[in-house]
Amino acid sequence: MSIDGLITKIKEKENPTVAGLDPKLEHIPAYLVEEAFGRCGRNLGGAAEAVWQFNKRLIDALYDIVPAIKPQSAYYELYGWEGVRALARTIEYAKRRGLYVIADVKRNDIGTTAAAYAEAYLGASEIGGAGEEAFGADSVTVNGYLGSDGVKPFLSYGKSIFVLVKTSNPSSGELQDLTVGGETVYRRMAALVKEWGAGSVGRYGYSEVGAVVGATYPAQLAELRKEMPETYFLVPGYGAQGGGAKDVAAAFREDGLGAVINASRSIMCAYKKEGYRPEDFARAAREEAVRMRDEIRGCIF
Amino acid sequence: MSIDGLITKIKEKENPTVAGLDPKLEHIPAYLVEEAFGRCGRNLGGAAEAVWQFNKRLIDALYDIVPAIKPQSAYYELYGWEGVRALARTIEYAKRRGLYVIADVKRNDIGTTAAAYAEAYLGASEIGGAGEEAFGADSVTVNGYLGSDGVKPFLSYGKSIFVLVKTSNPSSGELQDLTVGGETVYRRMAALVKEWGAGSVGRYGYSEVGAVVGATYPAQLAELRKEMPETYFLVPGYGAQGGGAKDVAAAFREDGLGAVINASRSIMCAYKKEGYRPEDFARAAREEAVRMRDEIRGCIF
Repeated sequence: MSIDGLITKIKEKENPTVAGLDPKLEHIPAYLVEEAFGRCGRNLGGAAEAVWQFNKRLIDALYDIVPAIKPQSAYYELYGWEGVRALARTIEYAKRRGLYVIADVKRNDIGTTAAAYAEAYLGASEIGGAGEEAFGADSVTVNGYLGSDGVKPFLSYGKSIFVLVKTSNPSSGELQDLTVGGETVYRRMAALVKEWGAGSVGRYGYSEVGAVVGATYPAQLAELRKEMPETYFLVPGYGAQGGGAKDVAAAFREDGLGAVINASRSIMCAYKKEGYRPEDFARAAREEAVRMRDEIRGCIF
Repeated sequence: MSIDGLITKIKEKENPTVAGLDPKLEHIPAYLVEEAFGRCGRNLGGAAEAVWQFNKRLIDALYDIVPAIKPQSAYYELYGWEGVRALARTIEYAKRRGLYVIADVKRNDIGTTAAAYAEAYLGASEIGGAGEEAFGADSVTVNGYLGSDGVKPFLSYGKSIFVLVKTSNPSSGELQDLTVGGETVYRRMAALVKEWGAGSVGRYGYSEVGAVVGATYPAQLAELRKEMPETYFLVPGYGAQGGGAKDVAAAFREDGLGAVINASRSIMCAYKKEGYRPEDFARAAREEAVRMRDEIRGCIF
């Protein structure tokens, strides 16, 4: 689905946030994990079953509140091919529930191989003359270190992508903040993102090539917002990583659009806060998603 | 397995090459694909079965010639979770045949997530107090755009990794060749690779943190070889991408070590050359692997 599809959902739900689904077993209530082990064994298959059950109930609790989910592929690959099957199921189920799905895969490779990744996550795989969707996500995250021919294959499907520009982690500056001819590497990446997006601006004024910019660097967020008026931002780092609502406010344009803020652990693990039992995890997630929506809306309007 | 493990296999087989397994359906003989469709259906599952059958026979034909294989993850993800199951089977089978397995995944993320990827591909996933290998590769490729905390988690398992420094694709220079304070971005990445590898130098004089440097840029290959005496190079771009044996010779040190040269399509698709039938694909791959070994040995000794 195009960036317009995401923005339409954001407007409908009046909520510029995305729920990150990073279902490491330690984040899943123990009773749910044990139930899955009981059914499928104390192994990768049982872990993947716990992941799927957790996600399904979170999606049921969140689908009318948030416009989008962002499954982080690492936490599915962690449980082998069975975990990857849980990822495919999660994407399919979330789309059925009307959610926009950003597969956080940060894939990158030379042109022909990037084309295979794009086909896998955004397109349909060619099987004996017909096409079959392998994952069928609406959008992916992409690492642009290889330059244009590693990124452009992802733009063949009329869907949006988000390219890493300035990441939220502490060491992101080691490469990204280096100064190149008077500007930083992340600014140069931002310029490439604008180039790749030119010509694909939709009806809300944003291109199909978005940028990942961490909430943990609010000054850079504000700088890039000014520099990239037609680029949608996917902003990680809110909540558990330390970014607050005031930090992320700089990611938005004056119309209240321009960014989608991710929170993973604070929603998934909301049940660990006082006043909840593990059995309440889905309700706790929903209440945290509502709180986060209201907090961020309060800062941008 | 450590870099010493790879070097030992290279010395035993007197062969510094790795066979890339990028089994897109169009590379697999049609009769094998049709057989798999007949057994498993004309769908992702059938495609994954074709991939597995192709790989298994290639490994049987190559295991006493090449020291290592390098499955490119994109061509497995292309066939969904069933494709990823074929990847897991391929890794397990290749290791049983004594091959060193470099999972070409180019993963990258913030620290906690990089740790999950590392656990998935190099370590064991924690499942109810015990550990189970999800993929169990010997080594992975890593994209270092996020800096140290996205790379260091991969170094917890006493295994080697290969970090993208100067990639083989035409547009690699857009970011990598930018000049930063008198040196290029790829030189800065090379300096980080040396830093990450310091303290892990094994008995042959090489660290656990290798570098990916494309055969298509022989001048940079020679420059980096001089700059990084303790870094093992994984060199893609030989064969179908245009790099020749003379181009890759610069990747080696005087002792004949220091690099492992990858070829994917030229080995997988050797059966498409004159004189072979599709049924001869495994023999054709073996003969091409022998030819490549001899060609590269001829240039470095």
